[in-house]
Amino acid sequence: MFSNITNKKIYQQVINQIQDMILSGKLKKGDKLMSERELSEKMGVSRTSIREAIRVLETMGIIESRQGEGNFICNNIESSLIQPLSMMFILNNGSYEDILELRNMIELEAVKLAAIRGTEEEFEELKMISQNLTNNDKNCDKEGIDKMIHYKIACMSKNFLIKSLYKISLNLLEDFIVNSRQKIVNYYNEEEILNNQHKKICDAIIAREPENAYKYMKEHLDLIKITMDKI
Amino acid sequence: MFSNITNKKIYQQVINQIQDMILSGKLKKGDKLMSERELSEKMGVSRTSIREAIRVLETMGIIESRQGEGNFICNNIESSLIQPLSMMFILNNGSYEDILELRNMIELEAVKLAAIRGTEEEFEELKMISQNLTNNDKNCDKEGIDKMIHYKIACMSKNFLIKSLYKISLNLLEDFIVNSRQKIVNYYNEEEILNNQHKKICDAIIAREPENAYKYMKEHLDLIKITMDKI
Repeated sequence: MFSNITNKKIYQQVINQIQDMILSGKLKKGDKLMSERELSEKMGVSRTSIREAIRVLETMGIIESRQGEGNFICNNIESSLIQPLSMMFILNNGSYEDILELRNMIELEAVKLAAIRGTEEEFEELKMISQNLTNNDKNCDKEGIDKMIHYKIACMSKNFLIKSLYKISLNLLEDFIVNSRQKIVNYYNEEEILNNQHKKICDAIIAREPENAYKYMKEHLDLIKITMDKI
Repeated sequence: MFSNITNKKIYQQVINQIQDMILSGKLKKGDKLMSERELSEKMGVSRTSIREAIRVLETMGIIESRQGEGNFICNNIESSLIQPLSMMFILNNGSYEDILELRNMIELEAVKLAAIRGTEEEFEELKMISQNLTNNDKNCDKEGIDKMIHYKIACMSKNFLIKSLYKISLNLLEDFIVNSRQKIVNYYNEEEILNNQHKKICDAIIAREPENAYKYMKEHLDLIKITMDKI
């Protein structure tokens, strides 16, 4: 259980203790944490340090603070508000090749899994979304649909880690999707090429053809690379 | 610049403002943040909220607090102390298939890039590490070497995002490496098969043969999957 803390960087040690208890299975989803006062007494640290540690875990969607009830362990990555990878990327002056390699990694795997594991309900939804891309409605938010298709594919992989990875890099990936879409549309002076690529990817997923889904996703990512290299 | 904050969940809004300034390039690596007192006045929130927000960013290696000097923007993912993905995995009762799919994703891409981008110096180091696996020294920490080889390959990809992904999933990946190694060694009653697989991967990287490096990494990950499925 929790043990006494004596060293420096107190709040980080509090986090480490809570993290260790989660990783070892002693704290589970839904469990209520002791009160901040009790934790502070058990660990021999100030309530401020406990509070700071809880804030960090709350930001990451690991702890949920319910007013008047206390702090609970949760697994709500959806509620994670911060995008460390996106910030790190900017701070490191990352290039578009870095993001494309990341997308290759995530999406070529995810698209195969989506074709294998997607449910009929998800296929219906994907079909509706992709039809909006190829209709001729000028007012339709094509960028939004593009982003939605890629996120949906990550979710359909049914692998929580892949979905989480996508989620924690969301800003980075979606900014890139919008940016590269604009460049490709400008370069070829039409958006049909992109819309058709998405349609082929979605159709292959819906037909449960993982190898074709992979092939068309690869064609799509390759087109982005070729165009970005030229500009 | 920073604007006044009036709503709830104050510390999270402070984080969002700092995050936005980083993502838009207004705050750069090495920049000094205003003092906590100044930030608190500019944003119209308590110093406690400012401090909580800074703690969160500090934990993620985005802010470095230097005693007596103040808070600086940095990009030190190495110093990130928390592993949200590892915790999320445990809290979601993830399976070994989830981790294997994540490893397939990261390592099959990383190994190709390592063979293309590794430096002669890195190859020398990789050669030395892998030789230790195939020597007959019983006291040699084979598990440690196994982990080191996989982490080194991620670093040699020279893609900061891939390296960061590996780093933020480190606990998860390394526990899995140790665990699956033990199972395979027990199952086949020998460790030669694993050691030889690693040697082949490393040799292909050093020979700058990305396709072979990919092939041998795939063989390695497939062996893990086949063995784990049997047990």
